[in-house]
Amino acid sequence: MVESVERIALVGGTHGTELTGVFLIKKFQQSPHLIKRDGIKTITLLANPQAVAMGRRYVDTDLNRAFNPQDLDNPELINYEQSRAKVIAQKIQQEKIDVIIDLHSTTANMGVTIILHNSHPYLLRLAAYLTETNPLVKILQYPLNQDTPYLRSLVELGMTIEVGAIANGLLDARLFQQTEDVIHAILDYFAADKQGRLLSSPKSFTFYRVIEKVDYPRNQNGGIEGMIHPQLQFQDYQPLDSGHPIFVTFDGKEIFYEGESTVYPVFINEAAYYEKGIAMYLTQKDEYNWEI
Amino acid sequence: MVESVERIALVGGTHGTELTGVFLIKKFQQSPHLIKRDGIKTITLLANPQAVAMGRRYVDTDLNRAFNPQDLDNPELINYEQSRAKVIAQKIQQEKIDVIIDLHSTTANMGVTIILHNSHPYLLRLAAYLTETNPLVKILQYPLNQDTPYLRSLVELGMTIEVGAIANGLLDARLFQQTEDVIHAILDYFAADKQGRLLSSPKSFTFYRVIEKVDYPRNQNGGIEGMIHPQLQFQDYQPLDSGHPIFVTFDGKEIFYEGESTVYPVFINEAAYYEKGIAMYLTQKDEYNWEI
Repeated sequence: MVESVERIALVGGTHGTELTGVFLIKKFQQSPHLIKRDGIKTITLLANPQAVAMGRRYVDTDLNRAFNPQDLDNPELINYEQSRAKVIAQKIQQEKIDVIIDLHSTTANMGVTIILHNSHPYLLRLAAYLTETNPLVKILQYPLNQDTPYLRSLVELGMTIEVGAIANGLLDARLFQQTEDVIHAILDYFAADKQGRLLSSPKSFTFYRVIEKVDYPRNQNGGIEGMIHPQLQFQDYQPLDSGHPIFVTFDGKEIFYEGESTVYPVFINEAAYYEKGIAMYLTQKDEYNWEI
Repeated sequence: MVESVERIALVGGTHGTELTGVFLIKKFQQSPHLIKRDGIKTITLLANPQAVAMGRRYVDTDLNRAFNPQDLDNPELINYEQSRAKVIAQKIQQEKIDVIIDLHSTTANMGVTIILHNSHPYLLRLAAYLTETNPLVKILQYPLNQDTPYLRSLVELGMTIEVGAIANGLLDARLFQQTEDVIHAILDYFAADKQGRLLSSPKSFTFYRVIEKVDYPRNQNGGIEGMIHPQLQFQDYQPLDSGHPIFVTFDGKEIFYEGESTVYPVFINEAAYYEKGIAMYLTQKDEYNWEI
C-alpha cells in the first residue's frame, strides 16, 4: 500500500493517433517548470514514439494491452510494442513511480473522464476532489483483469485521463486545455497532500462502474451489420432504458436495448474498438460515500 | 464534351479509414437494385481494399494523389496505390464511365459537400438541383492542377461527396443516411435527364470556390506550434473576417486572420491534412446565375 505520493509519471502517446497526450507531453518536456511541484518528482514519457511518427495507433500490437506481468517477463515477445512495454515497465520501476497518469483520447463523447482501476483511498479522495472542483470531470471505475493489461496497471495508483469526443490524428484546442487543466489539478492535489495541506474533498461523489461490453450486430462472417443509432451517438453517460434504440442496421432496421435496469453507456462508437468487438461499454451509476 | 450521362462509377474506400463510403459500396454491392435506374448503368468500386483491411488511409502513398496521367503511364511506379490507380483508371476507361462519384469523409464539419473540379454545365445544373432539393448540400469548386491528381479527375464529370464532421475509422448513422440520400438524388437526376424529363433547377445557386490553403504555425524544425482556435473549430463555411482568431499556440497565444476580404474556411482541422501542411482551405462565396 502506498503511504505517500512522491513520484509521478505523466505518459502520452501510448496510442500514436491520440495527439492530445502526445503534444501535452512535448509541451511539458519543453517547459518542465509547468509540472514542477514542491515535494513531488514528475517524469514525462512518450510511450510509443514509433506509432506517433507513423500516425498509427500502434506499429505491431496495441501497446496498452502489453503489460501482462508474464508477458513482460517473456523474452520471446519482441515485437515493437512488446519491447516498448518492457522498457516502460523497467523505467517505472527504476524511477520508483507511485502514480501513473496515462493521457488518452476517444472518439466517444466522454468529456474529461478519469478512469480508475481500483478503490485505493488515495484515488477515491482525488476523484472526489476533481469532481467537486471541475464540473467536466467524470469518474469511471474499470477494474482490470487478464484481458486488460493496461499501462496504468504497472502501479497501484494508476489512472487514465480519457478525453473526447475527438477524432484520431488531430488536436482540439478546447480538449487540449481541459486535459492540461485536470493534469495541473492532480499535481496540485498530490503536492498539497505531500505538504500536509490536504485539500478538502466532498464526502460523496458520483462514479460510473463498467459492467458489460456490447458488440455491434454482426453477420455470419463477423462483418458488422449496423451502426450506433443516431439517438445514442455522442450520448455517453446519459441514461439508457429498455426499449430505447441502440443500433440501426445498414438497411434501416432499429435494434433496441433490452436490459432490465437503467445503464449509462460510455465509449460509444470508439473507432479503435471496432476491431475489438466493442460498440460501447455499459456502466452503472453509483455514489461513493464515506467519512474522511 | 459529354453529351449524355449513361455510365456512372460509384467509388468508396479511396481512403481506407473513411468508412461511410466503404460500407455504402458494400451495401450497394449486396443490394444492387438500390442503385438501378432505367437508362443508366452504375458500377461500384472499392478503390483501396488493402488500406480498408488495414484500417489505414493508405498503404504506401495517398491513392487520391496517384492519378497524374504521366504517373499512370509510368511502368516504374509500382507501389500498392500506384498499381491500384492504374487498375482503376483502366476500369473507368474500359467501362466508358461518364460520371465518377467518389465517396469521402472528413473530420471537418462540412456537412454534405459536393466537390466539383470544373464548370461543366451538367455538373452546374446538378449542383443547382441538389442545393435546392437538399438544404444540407454545399457546393465546393476546387479546380484541379498538377498537385491534385485526384481519382475524380479521370473523367470530365468527376465529383466527390465529402461528409463530416466524422472521425476516421468509424460510422455515423446520420451521415451514412445523408450520404446515401444524396447519392440517390444524383442517380435520380441523371436518370430523369437520360429519359428526357429534365428536373427543374433554380436559375442561381450559391457555391464556394477554393482560393488558398493555410498551414499551421510551425517552428524551425517544421513541427506544429499551435492548434485551430476553439472559436474556429467546426465553423466550416462560416464567414471569417480580419482580426478574428484562427489558431492558438500551445502556450496560449492567439493568432488572427489578417486577410482583407471575408473568406469561408473549409476542411478546418482535417486529420489527414496535418502531414500535407494544410490547417484549412479558404474559399470565396459566390453565386452562379444563368438562364436555362
